[in-house]
Amino acid sequence: MNTFGRNLRLTTFGESHGKAMGGILDGMPGGVKIDMDIILRETARRRPGQSHLVTARNEKDIPELLSGLTDDMVTLGTPIGFIVRNSDQRSGDYGEMAELYRPNHADFTYDMRYGLHEPRGGGRASARETLNWVIGGAIARQIPDMKKISVDAKVIAIGGVSGTPEELTKVVEEAMKRGDSVGGVVECVIKGVPAGIGNPVFGKLHARLAQAMMSINAAKGFEYGDGFAAASMFGTEHADIFTSENGHIYTLTNHSGGIQGGISNGMPISFRVAFKPTPTLLRDIETVDKEGRPGILKGKGRHDPCVALRAVPVVEAMAVLVIADEMLGTKH
Amino acid sequence: MNTFGRNLRLTTFGESHGKAMGGILDGMPGGVKIDMDIILRETARRRPGQSHLVTARNEKDIPELLSGLTDDMVTLGTPIGFIVRNSDQRSGDYGEMAELYRPNHADFTYDMRYGLHEPRGGGRASARETLNWVIGGAIARQIPDMKKISVDAKVIAIGGVSGTPEELTKVVEEAMKRGDSVGGVVECVIKGVPAGIGNPVFGKLHARLAQAMMSINAAKGFEYGDGFAAASMFGTEHADIFTSENGHIYTLTNHSGGIQGGISNGMPISFRVAFKPTPTLLRDIETVDKEGRPGILKGKGRHDPCVALRAVPVVEAMAVLVIADEMLGTKH
Amino acid sequence: MNTFGRNLRLTTFGESHGKAMGGILDGMPGGVKIDMDIILRETARRRPGQSHLVTARNEKDIPELLSGLTDDMVTLGTPIGFIVRNSDQRSGDYGEMAELYRPNHADFTYDMRYGLHEPRGGGRASARETLNWVIGGAIARQIPDMKKISVDAKVIAIGGVSGTPEELTKVVEEAMKRGDSVGGVVECVIKGVPAGIGNPVFGKLHARLAQAMMSINAAKGFEYGDGFAAASMFGTEHADIFTSENGHIYTLTNHSGGIQGGISNGMPISFRVAFKPTPTLLRDIETVDKEGRPGILKGKGRHDPCVALRAVPVVEAMAVLVIADEMLGTKH
Amino acid sequence: MNTFGRNLRLTTFGESHGKAMGGILDGMPGGVKIDMDIILRETARRRPGQSHLVTARNEKDIPELLSGLTDDMVTLGTPIGFIVRNSDQRSGDYGEMAELYRPNHADFTYDMRYGLHEPRGGGRASARETLNWVIGGAIARQIPDMKKISVDAKVIAIGGVSGTPEELTKVVEEAMKRGDSVGGVVECVIKGVPAGIGNPVFGKLHARLAQAMMSINAAKGFEYGDGFAAASMFGTEHADIFTSENGHIYTLTNHSGGIQGGISNGMPISFRVAFKPTPTLLRDIETVDKEGRPGILKGKGRHDPCVALRAVPVVEAMAVLVIADEMLGTKH
Repeated sequence: MNTFGRNLRLTTFGESHGKAMGGILDGMPGGVKIDMDIILRETARRRPGQSHLVTARNEKDIPELLSGLTDDMVTLGTPIGFIVRNSDQRSGDYGEMAELYRPNHADFTYDMRYGLHEPRGGGRASARETLNWVIGGAIARQIPDMKKISVDAKVIAIGGVSGTPEELTKVVEEAMKRGDSVGGVVECVIKGVPAGIGNPVFGKLHARLAQAMMSINAAKGFEYGDGFAAASMFGTEHADIFTSENGHIYTLTNHSGGIQGGISNGMPISFRVAFKPTPTLLRDIETVDKEGRPGILKGKGRHDPCVALRAVPVVEAMAVLVIADEMLGTKH
Repeated sequence: MNTFGRNLRLTTFGESHGKAMGGILDGMPGGVKIDMDIILRETARRRPGQSHLVTARNEKDIPELLSGLTDDMVTLGTPIGFIVRNSDQRSGDYGEMAELYRPNHADFTYDMRYGLHEPRGGGRASARETLNWVIGGAIARQIPDMKKISVDAKVIAIGGVSGTPEELTKVVEEAMKRGDSVGGVVECVIKGVPAGIGNPVFGKLHARLAQAMMSINAAKGFEYGDGFAAASMFGTEHADIFTSENGHIYTLTNHSGGIQGGISNGMPISFRVAFKPTPTLLRDIETVDKEGRPGILKGKGRHDPCVALRAVPVVEAMAVLVIADEMLGTKH
Repeated sequence: MNTFGRNLRLTTFGESHGKAMGGILDGMPGGVKIDMDIILRETARRRPGQSHLVTARNEKDIPELLSGLTDDMVTLGTPIGFIVRNSDQRSGDYGEMAELYRPNHADFTYDMRYGLHEPRGGGRASARETLNWVIGGAIARQIPDMKKISVDAKVIAIGGVSGTPEELTKVVEEAMKRGDSVGGVVECVIKGVPAGIGNPVFGKLHARLAQAMMSINAAKGFEYGDGFAAASMFGTEHADIFTSENGHIYTLTNHSGGIQGGISNGMPISFRVAFKPTPTLLRDIETVDKEGRPGILKGKGRHDPCVALRAVPVVEAMAVLVIADEMLGTKH
Repeated sequence: MNTFGRNLRLTTFGESHGKAMGGILDGMPGGVKIDMDIILRETARRRPGQSHLVTARNEKDIPELLSGLTDDMVTLGTPIGFIVRNSDQRSGDYGEMAELYRPNHADFTYDMRYGLHEPRGGGRASARETLNWVIGGAIARQIPDMKKISVDAKVIAIGGVSGTPEELTKVVEEAMKRGDSVGGVVECVIKGVPAGIGNPVFGKLHARLAQAMMSINAAKGFEYGDGFAAASMFGTEHADIFTSENGHIYTLTNHSGGIQGGISNGMPISFRVAFKPTPTLLRDIETVDKEGRPGILKGKGRHDPCVALRAVPVVEAMAVLVIADEMLGTKH
């Protein structure tokens, strides 16, 4: 449940306001030189507070790698344990949050599932958990086979507006001014995956990507290739014609998004993930507590005006984990 | 790879033009009376040829249950093996298909993955495989806890047109006349799932549904609750306010689609799946063979004008398998 | 629960007196030519009635392979489904067995686990299930890498007597005359496994072999290398000294049984499995029924005088499945 | 590979001379009050240096629990991450060990498996890893259902001598005087497991116990119930006759060791594990390095004269993990 992957397995733990986040990456091949700077670069990308558009929670998020490496940072083939201390850890004054269910948070459902929930912050449901995923992905990126593969995500629409970064920024800024938040769409393109990766019928490459992406906080939709637009198309519009050049077979178009029958075909893999706006409390709002008794949650502008922005390195990390897992499991 | 589920596991086999399809459903509790008519009803719903809108391949698709049951069809708690003979099984005259890669089929990618592919029909990549899933789902539906849960899917749009069945039918008929195919969207609503089902952070209920749905042939996208539309919304528009009635806690709206933080909240679970049009060959088309040598595939009207239509019982079956799996694994 | 293996997965079904036994072998690489004679040879080895020392239940046990193969028996890389009809299938006259718990059978524990048990024969707990395993192993033996590896088991002791086949036969014959059964020990030696196979710390090669062997009906103990005798030894007696010849490193002795730290070291892998005698009813015996009411089971000589004899090909099959699984999962 | 369990999953990491050992226990139910003293008690039992019979490596082994708990140590149902710093961590002067393969250690096989091995101490193959298991077991013991179950292991034989603790101690002391080590047998008895626990055919309770026990460093054999002795018995000697008292059904004897057909029958579960002596170097010994070049390892008395002694709490911890896993996965 807190493990992702088959050949390369990331198992994670941590509540946002507990002692530490952390995880174990199991299945890394031996002999891989790990560059700590790549890990720090990726965690910095998702860190809150690195621009005025994301929340100001100030944590250094420096992971400590505890095992699986020689002194000069070469993988031993054994599991890599890591932790990140929660420097922003507080406790005590969460009286109201502990009592009243916040709309569109997981307080209520965690109570239903586990009988209780962590009253400080979002606990395990906090987006802080994705820090673990980014660390796992940043290590997995360094497997030699993965270095030949590019995984690039970016926000392509916010609040229904597609356009240049300047235009998207403007939408977020306007929401911020109102204390509001706004949804967005992240697109990811993976280049360099050889043809032949993926395991039908229940391990199809796009099904695994879907599961990975829908695990990210606030994700509401996933599509690959032509995606939902394909539902409005006719068969004659949708064919990817094969051709070849010096024995290399490829398709002239890429409606399929790089995957056919659940297996990569060597073309760029492309998919999109829809993120909802984080719940906003502009004004006081009625809700209930555990016993169903009504109460009022005080309005306050929400920290993160657009989670899609911070989701970009997380989308990449999860895509890396899926592809690395499949690459390790397939002879190619 | 050919196994789906954790507590209730469906493992399947079969090529479309091989001897038989079949599977093993493992994890059914003991003491469940199985009604064969429910299985036959579900397989009939997905059978080709039951209306003029779907392909005419004529197979009875009567599954034979081989184990896991007493003589009077009560489950023993042991695995239920089943097979369905392929009565339409042919061989020999697939010379051209074996040679030339069909666009948007899995011939090429199976060659890349396994070194060869089944030349008769789509082999394992054929939609006939979903017959196994429908059988598994039809058995799982009969677990007592599942009988209190309704799982209902329907086509809500075809070729970009939303509307009444009559309007949707018209879009398909027009595509058929031209020998073309057309995409569509299937919506599924699940009612009666108790709050507290799902396993964060990598077994979130919607992530598992996404994986399940994206496993279906021709699926290109998945969304739940507000889905992609949420990416165009503001936080103020998206909150599901809690209320209670006689101690029963629920939300006034259902933007979340019945799932919060990856766990069911007791509201109806709703999601949509986008299906592409099946590849169409109205006229001769250029392609290549295994060696990359060019060749011409003869044009012919494609069998299945709208796979979304036949996907409806498959979407339901996979949803049943996900929910039953989670119900069996959670104390509730 | 009814699936064995990680990269090569055997999932099985079938009650001894139901319609059929069967299974799905998933994970076979593509392009492997399958020789049906090898499968028939192995199933013949475990068939009851092939000598006067084993039970006379007369079944042909001819498996039908239903998928995963081309017409000329080359693997497609897709799951291989197979079934074996139970020709000896009866029903009706099991009144007494259905009522009274047989000592050292699984009637009682299946009732406790599943709420009911198959009243005809041993159901899923019957040794007939191992037919599925032998079929799976006979297919897996044909993977090219496995053809270089020999897996040979034999009975080395019966009823406490070690000796020549003649001496062992005599012990069985004497037990038979009395209508009694007798236990035995099977030894298995695997040669040709390259060094470097196995996955510490919870997938150690000998731990997986232990699990596999202890899954066999009537198995009561497992040991590898020096086994239980090592518990009586001193460290000075137990070392396997390394040496090398032309760069090839090996050990002068093999106390370790070919495995060190859970990973093969290139030496022959050897282990032993203890089998208990099958329960015998020489005379009427007191027992109870489901409600705890006393009753008398009629005495009758037990079919199988020494299960260790029939276990030999089963031990080999399970060893093949473990080794093939590890070989497929390890780059070597 | 570094994960054990299905419903309750322990994933571990750590090299003996690296920064820390640690793990993640996933699947603990919510609402369980955790007593840190029980964890400290169990880790103290396996700590080296607590008597003159075990090695003097001086580490505090105080685990830090990092997640999954409220401030007052109640489980949240989320994964419990823990670490134990290696205070005895050294580096630098392992020149010789890095060069020459030690007999009956995993240096050579890790090189074969992963391409390199941790040159300081035994790395991942060190018995220090079992500290993680003891911590996991000590947490799992506190699940309410487990509190009703007793799991007790003890050494029953050392160096071939069975007898009182005094007699066993004498055998170890004599080996110590010579700088030698000695093997032993640990027996474990589990009382209070309800009938109906276990999952045939590949998840049989004794097969899972076998896998768990054979994962422990230096384990060479496993047997349950009558074990290897059953191989010398006749069917007439081996039957466990059923009887009942006030509706409670049980057996008069317990040759079966509490498990029939892979499922618990409510009687005490008993098994034994054979441990080899740790490798001893009384005098200089010839060996080879990675290139196969000969070299001499300097003789030195080995630290741990009898690993069976320290294995006792590890055997219990692994037994607890197996039983807790099965209890959580079975309705009972």
